[in-house]
Amino acid sequence: MSSPSKRTGRRPGATDTRDQIADAARTLFAEVGYERTSFRKIAAAAGVDPALVVHFYGSKEGLFRQVMALPPEIADALARLADGPRETVGRRLAEAVVGALENPASRAITLGRIRCATTHPDAAALVRETVTRDIHQVAEAVNDDRPDVRAVLIGVQVVGMALARYVVFVEPLASMTASEVIDVVAPTFQHYLVGPLAR
Amino acid sequence: MSSPSKRTGRRPGATDTRDQIADAARTLFAEVGYERTSFRKIAAAAGVDPALVVHFYGSKEGLFRQVMALPPEIADALARLADGPRETVGRRLAEAVVGALENPASRAITLGRIRCATTHPDAAALVRETVTRDIHQVAEAVNDDRPDVRAVLIGVQVVGMALARYVVFVEPLASMTASEVIDVVAPTFQHYLVGPLAR
Repeated sequence: MSSPSKRTGRRPGATDTRDQIADAARTLFAEVGYERTSFRKIAAAAGVDPALVVHFYGSKEGLFRQVMALPPEIADALARLADGPRETVGRRLAEAVVGALENPASRAITLGRIRCATTHPDAAALVRETVTRDIHQVAEAVNDDRPDVRAVLIGVQVVGMALARYVVFVEPLASMTASEVIDVVAPTFQHYLVGPLAR
Repeated sequence: MSSPSKRTGRRPGATDTRDQIADAARTLFAEVGYERTSFRKIAAAAGVDPALVVHFYGSKEGLFRQVMALPPEIADALARLADGPRETVGRRLAEAVVGALENPASRAITLGRIRCATTHPDAAALVRETVTRDIHQVAEAVNDDRPDVRAVLIGVQVVGMALARYVVFVEPLASMTASEVIDVVAPTFQHYLVGPLAR
């Protein structure tokens, strides 16, 4: 997860060490879940003293929330979606979501959040916030008819797709190209954002 | 999970004991996941000797597969969906899925499968089978254009909805009535079964 320069630097600064700890924590949260990720394991994976993890991040809850925050570029991309044409907003949302999931760093964050949310309230709260704040913001800008319901339906699609494609490896979804995935989910996002909610 | 008669019977027969073990195992798989569900914990929850769990179910993998099988009534309901009118197949699928999730017994099976699938290959295999066999059967009977892609997109929606409504409690989905949920997901299922896959 780290760039080679971080690993080979002889005396990494505080920022590098902090990033190394964050990378290690994200990988562990995604791979073994919330409960089994300890400060000790994170420190071992990052090659630092456990006391340093506490120094930088305080509690496990605080660490989870900081390292699993949506990357600013994704939050920005979501915020800008409503500025473009309404007829293509579903496709542009699909491009943003699939793009984020194809990027190893933001995929680790998304999968880590989902995996941890099934077993731990802190992680569940973070997933709820993304839906009720970040996705809701898009839905509300596009449609004033029940944007809260639209946001959660989009969240449902994103979570299910992330699990099926990258965790459970359900075919043919797991083997489809990113562009094929965008093609098949874009109409659903368009419907959830713009279409009539129920017929 | 058991009927009262099972708990109060003085000398339960083998079938009752087997069912009690299955109920206890399903609850544990759903609540604590695959790894943390042991024969010892299942036996304690069912009030039987651990040796009896081994006697009835053999390996943990075998036990998981047997107690987490789709209930026959759900598999039958899915198989019958394609017999009805094509214009309402999405709504009827939504009714079958939401009905299964609102029933505590089949909900425990669905959530247990999903939770365990995020961490264990056996559980992931069972989730894949449901999509590529049971849901695929419906998609194939309704549409000969890429039923495999249609099946996995429906599976994505079901898994996401189950997690958001019953595990992560994302609002307003968590508080909507079953009938409201059917109303908002039926058009998506109809699209995935009957509509053009990509535009």
